[in-house]
Amino acid sequence: MKDLWSISTAEHTDGKETIMRRGNVYQIANGYMGYRGTLDEFTSEQLVGITLAGIFDRVGPAWREPVNAPNGGFTSVSLGGAELSALGNKVTRHRQTLRFGNALFERQTSFAFKGTTLTVRSARFLSAETPNLGVIRFSITCSRAATVTVRTGIDGNIWDLNGPHLLGLAATRRDSVLFVEGRTNESSKRVAVAETADIDFGKVTYESRGNRSLRVVHLRAEAGTTYTFHKYFAVFTDNDAVRGSVAEAAIETVLQARSLGYEDCLARHGARWQEKWNRSDVTIEGDDEAQLALRYSILQLLMVAPVKGSANSIPARALSGQVYKGAIFWDTEMFMFPFFIHTYPEKAVELMRYRIKTLDGARRKAKTEGRGYRGAFYAWESQETGDDACTYYNIGDPSTGRALRTYFRDKQVHISGDVAIAMWDYFRLTGDDSLLLEGGAEVILECARFYYSYAYYKDEKRRYEILDVIGPDEYHERVNNNAFTSMVAKETFTIAIATVNHLRRRHPKELRTLLKKLRIEGELPAFRDAARRLFIPGADAKTGIIEQFDGYLGLRESSVKELKARMIHPDEYLGAGQGLAVPTKIIKQADVVMMLNLFRTRFSAEIKRANWEYYEPRTEHGSSLSACAYAMVAAEFGNLDFAYKYFLKTAKIDLEAKYKVYVGSVFMGGSHPAANGGAWMTAVLGFGGVHADEKRVAINPRLCRKWRRLQFHLAYKGDDFRMNITKNSVTVASSRANTRVHAVLVAGKPVKCSPGRPVTVRYRQAR
Amino acid sequence: MKDLWSISTAEHTDGKETIMRRGNVYQIANGYMGYRGTLDEFTSEQLVGITLAGIFDRVGPAWREPVNAPNGGFTSVSLGGAELSALGNKVTRHRQTLRFGNALFERQTSFAFKGTTLTVRSARFLSAETPNLGVIRFSITCSRAATVTVRTGIDGNIWDLNGPHLLGLAATRRDSVLFVEGRTNESSKRVAVAETADIDFGKVTYESRGNRSLRVVHLRAEAGTTYTFHKYFAVFTDNDAVRGSVAEAAIETVLQARSLGYEDCLARHGARWQEKWNRSDVTIEGDDEAQLALRYSILQLLMVAPVKGSANSIPARALSGQVYKGAIFWDTEMFMFPFFIHTYPEKAVELMRYRIKTLDGARRKAKTEGRGYRGAFYAWESQETGDDACTYYNIGDPSTGRALRTYFRDKQVHISGDVAIAMWDYFRLTGDDSLLLEGGAEVILECARFYYSYAYYKDEKRRYEILDVIGPDEYHERVNNNAFTSMVAKETFTIAIATVNHLRRRHPKELRTLLKKLRIEGELPAFRDAARRLFIPGADAKTGIIEQFDGYLGLRESSVKELKARMIHPDEYLGAGQGLAVPTKIIKQADVVMMLNLFRTRFSAEIKRANWEYYEPRTEHGSSLSACAYAMVAAEFGNLDFAYKYFLKTAKIDLEAKYKVYVGSVFMGGSHPAANGGAWMTAVLGFGGVHADEKRVAINPRLCRKWRRLQFHLAYKGDDFRMNITKNSVTVASSRANTRVHAVLVAGKPVKCSPGRPVTVRYRQAR
Repeated sequence: MKDLWSISTAEHTDGKETIMRRGNVYQIANGYMGYRGTLDEFTSEQLVGITLAGIFDRVGPAWREPVNAPNGGFTSVSLGGAELSALGNKVTRHRQTLRFGNALFERQTSFAFKGTTLTVRSARFLSAETPNLGVIRFSITCSRAATVTVRTGIDGNIWDLNGPHLLGLAATRRDSVLFVEGRTNESSKRVAVAETADIDFGKVTYESRGNRSLRVVHLRAEAGTTYTFHKYFAVFTDNDAVRGSVAEAAIETVLQARSLGYEDCLARHGARWQEKWNRSDVTIEGDDEAQLALRYSILQLLMVAPVKGSANSIPARALSGQVYKGAIFWDTEMFMFPFFIHTYPEKAVELMRYRIKTLDGARRKAKTEGRGYRGAFYAWESQETGDDACTYYNIGDPSTGRALRTYFRDKQVHISGDVAIAMWDYFRLTGDDSLLLEGGAEVILECARFYYSYAYYKDEKRRYEILDVIGPDEYHERVNNNAFTSMVAKETFTIAIATVNHLRRRHPKELRTLLKKLRIEGELPAFRDAARRLFIPGADAKTGIIEQFDGYLGLRESSVKELKARMIHPDEYLGAGQGLAVPTKIIKQADVVMMLNLFRTRFSAEIKRANWEYYEPRTEHGSSLSACAYAMVAAEFGNLDFAYKYFLKTAKIDLEAKYKVYVGSVFMGGSHPAANGGAWMTAVLGFGGVHADEKRVAINPRLCRKWRRLQFHLAYKGDDFRMNITKNSVTVASSRANTRVHAVLVAGKPVKCSPGRPVTVRYRQAR
Repeated sequence: MKDLWSISTAEHTDGKETIMRRGNVYQIANGYMGYRGTLDEFTSEQLVGITLAGIFDRVGPAWREPVNAPNGGFTSVSLGGAELSALGNKVTRHRQTLRFGNALFERQTSFAFKGTTLTVRSARFLSAETPNLGVIRFSITCSRAATVTVRTGIDGNIWDLNGPHLLGLAATRRDSVLFVEGRTNESSKRVAVAETADIDFGKVTYESRGNRSLRVVHLRAEAGTTYTFHKYFAVFTDNDAVRGSVAEAAIETVLQARSLGYEDCLARHGARWQEKWNRSDVTIEGDDEAQLALRYSILQLLMVAPVKGSANSIPARALSGQVYKGAIFWDTEMFMFPFFIHTYPEKAVELMRYRIKTLDGARRKAKTEGRGYRGAFYAWESQETGDDACTYYNIGDPSTGRALRTYFRDKQVHISGDVAIAMWDYFRLTGDDSLLLEGGAEVILECARFYYSYAYYKDEKRRYEILDVIGPDEYHERVNNNAFTSMVAKETFTIAIATVNHLRRRHPKELRTLLKKLRIEGELPAFRDAARRLFIPGADAKTGIIEQFDGYLGLRESSVKELKARMIHPDEYLGAGQGLAVPTKIIKQADVVMMLNLFRTRFSAEIKRANWEYYEPRTEHGSSLSACAYAMVAAEFGNLDFAYKYFLKTAKIDLEAKYKVYVGSVFMGGSHPAANGGAWMTAVLGFGGVHADEKRVAINPRLCRKWRRLQFHLAYKGDDFRMNITKNSVTVASSRANTRVHAVLVAGKPVKCSPGRPVTVRYRQAR
């Protein structure tokens, strides 16, 4: 039986690009940091990266990007004076494995050199219990007695796209603890790495060469004996609220871990992972390929979920490196948040706290962008302060080398509504209004205020309009009345009013304080008016088509193929005002269909089908966010084969790592947590047919052909459920620990679910 | 003493480009048609063109353009069997002259061949009395007896940019009258040319070869005898309201002219020209260069002024060819109309009738453009129907060969206001409200309606805004709150209300009919509201700078030089969204300064100076319309040296013909009637300091250094004035035929001017 809880490969050497891709596929992370899936002996040349969450830096005129920490996981081995590397020609066997169950990376490599075979084994994890901690077990076995040198410690030669970010890197040692500290260039934040190892063989000396602080073990290895040691490294920065210095915190952490020992550290880490999987795993019977890909996707999301209390969010390329500036995009709210809110609300809340933390940045952006707006205009590319990392010239023209003006930053205004919708969903689906009081209500009101200041009133038509925007389809910039954007803006007004109504009922005092602080009470009637009268393009009475924006239907018909044939340069961008797609109906990614998905209870299956059928052939799927939106809507109106195809495409994106990774000389690769979230959504919300709102959970499954059974967990209003779906039955198991009876709507039938008493409903799958 | 009533050149042969340029410089026209300044023996190869006003055609996917008529002016001469051409190597002497007084083109060329010198002399004019008629005197003199063959008739091999436009060209003859007729490709309009000649020497035969219908005169020329004949050709099209066929009309016209004879035709033509000059000439004492250039400019305008009753207007390249699609731009209202309304209202009214005639086209454009508007959105490039000839991809990128999306057509909305302002000015300055009743009021109301449907209301700011436009500076597309555009739109609302008020007082019945026809009465309160509350960017309290559009002042500083240095291709366009000027403050042409000029009584000299000084160094003057706007404003705040420099640049543009004429292989040359009008405006309104409004004429002269005396005519409210300005006195001579006493404000002093009684006022010129 196939192992559906790990991936592994026996390939050991390859070109730089494959090494880089594999670094993404085999990465591990714990929310605090990500460690790319590179091997112990690799260096910055092989794109080793320990990317930290929530700490950014800028050098010169280049982009701000997240800081990579000095590599405390470095170990290299020399045999008879020759340094061994899995990239060298001495490798006889290699296998590397990523275990999903506890996010453990393992490698085993045998080297043959002058008649001796030396086998290296290592395992590493980033602690799920102690976010600052990384733990590695490393062992060596020689087939014959040999002189072996092991160098292990901290490699400060770190990979940076636009570095160096750490200045004044100084290496020191306290007994067996190696220690490196530097300060970021821009805001002088300390980043400290400590490392220790329990080496009980050979003779240990220390060396410090070119930013490497190493422990050198000189060993006369006996034949057949396995020499094992454990390494513990910890990263701390000034972002960590520690008593005393970050240096002391790092040193203390590795010493504690070392005294606990590898096995105990691993056990505690594993227990945390068990809990994660208990909440979030999805099992699919009858389709191993889908099962593996989906579980891998879920692993990615669980690994990069922010640390509790960090108020960090998840960047568009997660913690797989510095690509996309380590920035948080709408991806998080629209494609990752649903996974967390439905399975792991404690992580969902952190994502929302990040938006509360960056509210002032959004206010600054509103004030300074364009003609100056009010309220909160969230950054298109958001870093730690919420100021926008997106540039106005965000894409290069490969033919001329000139930067192209794009309007992502100043016109992709749907971001604020995406945030407001997620904020409200947290309350709707958990029933927990503490987040609203913590700042969530303020975010929502400021987003509504922003849209009101952005909107214009069209007197002749007695309606507000949202003009001059970019919708999710970025190939058509500066359009008017974009369906997705306007819908999101209108929803924001509705949510703002609902927020005020809720607070008025439940927290009148806090509401008064908030309204006073924002001086916004006088604006509420305007929000109410806009919630009623903001214009949304309607479905055509005859065709059901919703026009993506004013004038879209008048654009020229074309095909992705035709456009590609007309390209002058293979990396040519199809948008940015003069791009080949601009005069045509070809869109980059789901836009109207994304709206149908986001507001799925408000449109009939007929409308969904009509628009899906219209827009899908006109979509390039040039974004990894596109396929799952089409898959979900296809599942809803019953095109299950298509939904499955797109589901699989989405679920396998990071596993197969076939995406483009270099544009010119710029590294663009990295993982796709939004697609990971999209895969989960398609499986559970799409095929599982789950729809939860403030009133109840509804399930209307449409399992795809291959799937015999689909099981998953669901968190709803503080309670937990386990769903077990077959082609003709749904079993809802309300957890024994749940506090109340829930009414669940199964295939249109209301069912009462009491704690500890599973209910099975038979249904006939709609086709 | 220098002749300031003609230009001439003795150069006889040159490259194709010079021939083409000279064709512009020496062109003649009579409103009905233009005849390029080419020589009798030239053919389509040398860009001979007889371009007709108001008749357009399209072939295939190419641009619609005006129709060129078969050349009824063709004559070639052979000596001893060898065809003579001024471009050949037999030329010993050549001189060609354009006489301003009666728009007469003359040439004299001597050829030497095998010991014989043959001199050709010709003179031609397009009749100012009979618009369809062209008349030529042609003579030959040989130094020795020689065998000469003269071929004269109609050359149907016509020059077309995107032709051929005349299908089924058939040549026939009726006695001595040659006749060619064809039909336009698109709408099958007949175009007929008849020609006859009074040849009383040699032996005449006829030949028809390859679209040429010729009379061949075989002559044994005696030494020293001059053989002279006269040619008469006439062009008629289905646009001419003739009884019977256009063929008959053409034949009848040439026969009548022939029976009248050359001298009589010329005398009648000359009398008409005398009248034109009496109305429009400007004399400058002390500056022959300026005098010649200005008079040449006035000649150009007088030549291309539309024929009475034609309801034609003046294309941006006049009748010098098919460049710019023969289209009418805002140039006409903003740069040419002022000359006519101040000197020749009978021509001004024709320009306005053209806009009335094309109102339905403007309505169609409003309905179909963008999201669909109401009212009248005049074409950016207007032909006979008022439908827009401008394409959405109006400029090519020379590097990629791709067409660039430009927004001239759909976003340069100031055109409708330009029309409304001129329409109202006709009434204001003539006192004649018949044009309003003829359709002018309807135009104005429909323009206001258009702006109301284009404008949005910004609730928070209690104001209307005009969003997403291009101002005169076309390098910055899709901007908000462009000062020029918003000012023009606001003025349109004001004019609409004033129009209704006037009609209510004077023509209540016609008003009722109009309001009913347009169903517009309910919209008038909205127009009144918009006239008050439409937002115009104000002058900064400290600097006096008016921001050209939202965000302009935040753009990057640069210089034209810097941009040119960065160009990849010499013909690279600096605008169109991704052009080099777009992110910078570099503008193509006067925009805020154009507004200060158009609304010059509403801004102080300080504001004018501040903005002029700010914008001028940032202006490329990439349009021929720019220099005169800067010159006029400079004259107003007293930078006379600068004003003079730019005046001269503007006045000499067509005379020197140094502009760019080819872009790639596309011919772009032609004359610049807007600059001609700009030269007149700078002289009379700028240096002369004339400002007329509905109440009175004011004069506040600021003569430039060189000018000792400036004299010109002025038409105002049906009366005529002659102004005589020196550095310290102004004499206003109210024509003896005037009907009433006018109060004229001279240098701030009110003066009563009675018919036939010149008044002189001394003044001190402000510096």
